[in-house]
Amino acid sequence: MSPKVKSEPGNVSPRERILGVAVEMARQIGLEGLSIGVLAKEVGMSKAGLFAHFGSKEELQLATLEAAQSVFMQRVIIPAEKTERGLPRLHQVITDWIAMAESACDKGGCFFYSVSAEFDGRPGAIRDRLVLASKQWLDWIQRQIALAKERGHLIAETDPEQLTFEIHAYEQQANWAALLVGQKDAYARAREAVRSRFYALATEQGKAILDAR
Amino acid sequence: MSPKVKSEPGNVSPRERILGVAVEMARQIGLEGLSIGVLAKEVGMSKAGLFAHFGSKEELQLATLEAAQSVFMQRVIIPAEKTERGLPRLHQVITDWIAMAESACDKGGCFFYSVSAEFDGRPGAIRDRLVLASKQWLDWIQRQIALAKERGHLIAETDPEQLTFEIHAYEQQANWAALLVGQKDAYARAREAVRSRFYALATEQGKAILDAR
Repeated sequence: MSPKVKSEPGNVSPRERILGVAVEMARQIGLEGLSIGVLAKEVGMSKAGLFAHFGSKEELQLATLEAAQSVFMQRVIIPAEKTERGLPRLHQVITDWIAMAESACDKGGCFFYSVSAEFDGRPGAIRDRLVLASKQWLDWIQRQIALAKERGHLIAETDPEQLTFEIHAYEQQANWAALLVGQKDAYARAREAVRSRFYALATEQGKAILDAR
Repeated sequence: MSPKVKSEPGNVSPRERILGVAVEMARQIGLEGLSIGVLAKEVGMSKAGLFAHFGSKEELQLATLEAAQSVFMQRVIIPAEKTERGLPRLHQVITDWIAMAESACDKGGCFFYSVSAEFDGRPGAIRDRLVLASKQWLDWIQRQIALAKERGHLIAETDPEQLTFEIHAYEQQANWAALLVGQKDAYARAREAVRSRFYALATEQGKAILDAR
């Protein structure tokens, strides 16, 4: 085994390492609180050193947003590509997404949940990027629901846009209830809501898929 | 008619008028942005004049939170007290709540939605008050669901805590989708989700109640 692949940190570029810290910080203090000075202290670099990677606060914020989206892809979307399209893949992705939010909750909150509320009223490049990422995610869910219908996993009456709205709602609510109200079973409630919603719209084939999971 | 009741503003105390402006401002800039100086400029008073009403920024923030809760009571809870308890009252309150959030969306957002994300990670008196208000609201929904079961409007299998989670989720999602993603039919989707969820759990009597509304 070459020394280069001996440990994970060895494979991570300085820029990736910095952005990893930035994502963790943004969960807790928001993207707006993420200044080059604050981040430099956290990663143990000079401000000048950080400026070599990111020329401005906005550039750093955008790169952090992209890094968070990449974590989401790596942890939720890509692992599910081995699973059959339609309801099996949809159910896996949604449950992995809830699990990721649940574990993020202990570390200060889900990145996109925190940043959404921070930027929904602040026009600019960051909000635009965030809106794009959110739309891509909603579109992914909606396309997968449409596929689940085509493949006979969900009944023909299923409205993909309405079901996307409802599925996304449960995860938003879990974050809100866990982070603000301290509801201990919030993510379990979200899982139960997702499952019962899918079940109500599943064909016999779809029910068998859910039962087997 | 006495001059005192001729127009609404005549019945409003200076403190109430100030808090009305504070609630509107907090929707847009958050409670944390609400300083005595900023508010004084907006209401056309001196900072000293405002200090006579609120001794500190935190006192002003708490009073603003209470004022927003009072608006919610006046516009959503109290009007429904004339409606039969159980599913009729529950459905009225939830649809009025969605309507209120929809109209608030044009003015910068739902007060509690904006302030929740702002304070979920900031321990202190404001967060405590916000958690209390949120729990009171969730409890109200849950009690009314339990009553709707007792009265035979919802089937015996209805889980009040789970249904409360789902109903609250739709409104959270509508705010997120309208404010961030700009989804035009977000509140209509929330109304549809609420109605179909109630319908799925309604008895024949409950279905008749929903059909008549």
